[in-house]
Amino acid sequence: MKVESKHYRTVWYDKQTNIVSMINQIKLPFKFEVVHFHTHQETAEAIRNMTVRGAGAIGATAGFAMAQAFVELENQNKWDAARAIIEGTRPTAVNLFYATHKVYEAGLRSVIAAQDMAQDIADEDAEGCKLIGDFGNKLIKANHRILTHCNAGWLAFVDYGSALSPIYAAHNDGKRPFVYVDETRPRGQGARLTAWELFNNNVDHKIIADNAAAFYMAKGEIDLLITGADRIAGNGDVANKIGTLEKAILAKEFGIPFYVAAPFSTIDYNSSGGEVFEIEERSDDELLYHEGPDENNIICRIRMASPGSEGLNPAFDITPFKYITAFITEKGIIKPEKLKDYSTKK
Amino acid sequence: MKVESKHYRTVWYDKQTNIVSMINQIKLPFKFEVVHFHTHQETAEAIRNMTVRGAGAIGATAGFAMAQAFVELENQNKWDAARAIIEGTRPTAVNLFYATHKVYEAGLRSVIAAQDMAQDIADEDAEGCKLIGDFGNKLIKANHRILTHCNAGWLAFVDYGSALSPIYAAHNDGKRPFVYVDETRPRGQGARLTAWELFNNNVDHKIIADNAAAFYMAKGEIDLLITGADRIAGNGDVANKIGTLEKAILAKEFGIPFYVAAPFSTIDYNSSGGEVFEIEERSDDELLYHEGPDENNIICRIRMASPGSEGLNPAFDITPFKYITAFITEKGIIKPEKLKDYSTKK
Repeated sequence: MKVESKHYRTVWYDKQTNIVSMINQIKLPFKFEVVHFHTHQETAEAIRNMTVRGAGAIGATAGFAMAQAFVELENQNKWDAARAIIEGTRPTAVNLFYATHKVYEAGLRSVIAAQDMAQDIADEDAEGCKLIGDFGNKLIKANHRILTHCNAGWLAFVDYGSALSPIYAAHNDGKRPFVYVDETRPRGQGARLTAWELFNNNVDHKIIADNAAAFYMAKGEIDLLITGADRIAGNGDVANKIGTLEKAILAKEFGIPFYVAAPFSTIDYNSSGGEVFEIEERSDDELLYHEGPDENNIICRIRMASPGSEGLNPAFDITPFKYITAFITEKGIIKPEKLKDYSTKK
Repeated sequence: MKVESKHYRTVWYDKQTNIVSMINQIKLPFKFEVVHFHTHQETAEAIRNMTVRGAGAIGATAGFAMAQAFVELENQNKWDAARAIIEGTRPTAVNLFYATHKVYEAGLRSVIAAQDMAQDIADEDAEGCKLIGDFGNKLIKANHRILTHCNAGWLAFVDYGSALSPIYAAHNDGKRPFVYVDETRPRGQGARLTAWELFNNNVDHKIIADNAAAFYMAKGEIDLLITGADRIAGNGDVANKIGTLEKAILAKEFGIPFYVAAPFSTIDYNSSGGEVFEIEERSDDELLYHEGPDENNIICRIRMASPGSEGLNPAFDITPFKYITAFITEKGIIKPEKLKDYSTKK
């Protein structure tokens, strides 16, 4: 997608220099900055500290980091240690394990194979997201009002995005979709990243407090919901950003379709249901403090909450498949109960 | 309730000087400050700019402002103009209209009667909230985990509070309740005011993102919900802080009791259902910006959202009576369908 009229992917890799480059998503939306990482440890740290975030982008970055390790290191013990470092960064992200696994297996053959595999994973991610957009576009009618939660746009992938890809496709078709952007506390990825994406692509949208979704549903002003997924179990249960479960339940209550857009790399057929997913508990600082520019455009970190109190900060929740109308994938629109038919494990 | 070991009400009135004093809730939780207003216009402005907020506290303050007007002004045209100013500050707050009406009627008799009536309204508010605590306490078992939204604590009333009054009563009985405090975006009254209250009264609690409520419900870690109400229709529909409807729907989905604690002054028997309530749309600045102390304890206002984007900011939503288990009132625990039996209008 474009930033200031120039095409970018969220993350890319130079085989010659072994450098991984990415858009620094911590600085967005207030500053657009590209950062470069020279070692697999640096790249892993970028995943951990959320310089890069989002299912597909994490996967591609982890693949690149694994390729970096094969260039840097000379034996299997060290490759294993590197893999453990990379896989320890974001335990809920299945794409991460998918990528490290595939690049690791290729690396056992040759360094070049690892590099090529990492690039293939990134390219497949972009192509898959484009297909998600094409399929999802068919669900969107002219002037539809769509609610999305968190950021599953192109910033969360290598390009195009998952939940936002159908919206971009509909927008490009002249359907004039309108997007309600959930702020997505505590980190505010909706207000900060999804809004930034939609603004840069001229898609009509407004940011709302996470609390306001039911208000607009009750007024009949939301036609459908599309969110992304961090991990999908074989039965269709979805782990995604905290608050997704709330939106799914509200959608069911108001009879509004709730779609989850995700590439197949997000599906973890080894997990039969969402109850086995490990939920990441993050520091309550994310809830109690917030950073942004003050009136002089100086980044300032403020206390959001009463000084004496602490918080709880689960990063994800599990949305049971019964709340999901269908998945929008690169293979088409798939009902939760049909998901198992697409498993390559039999 | 106590602040730094001294007893305070949220708002009080000195008949001799005609001065209304109140805790400046805009400065809380970062600074405790009492402010004084010498005219009905100043006091009305304090309601409008939310120096004082919360159903009962707004009502008492409006009553005091109306009394101030009778001291200041000499004829009915001017009293009517003052009443219009006061009633124009927060159109969703039924307690405000209740108080201005009663003080106005008394003021037609004498200035002293207006002052006494205003004081009576404040005293009745505190006594009613104490009774709400006593009745609500019966619903709370030892070690119950309670979710509350926004601030319906003593800061929202003259004393004790509505939603928090049963929790204080249970705490004083040694039941050790634990409170999940919804942050309550956009203004964060949960994280800022409810947490401040609970901390100062040693009630065990944690702040959560509004998005995390369903996560804890799904885990079976929330035993009941108690919220306040800004306005209750004759059929039991409730207007309350944006997000209340979401919590009520989630509670129903998980089979968790959802109680609304409110004094009878909150009930608007002239409104047969919530659909007639006017919903206040507030500036999107509340969503897009936030204020708090930086690391040097200097209050800083930051941009929370992507610079190019705008927001929508409905302040309240309507929770239909079907989601409400019961009302906790100063007259006892009342099911929504029984509310009409308590109407004095027949």
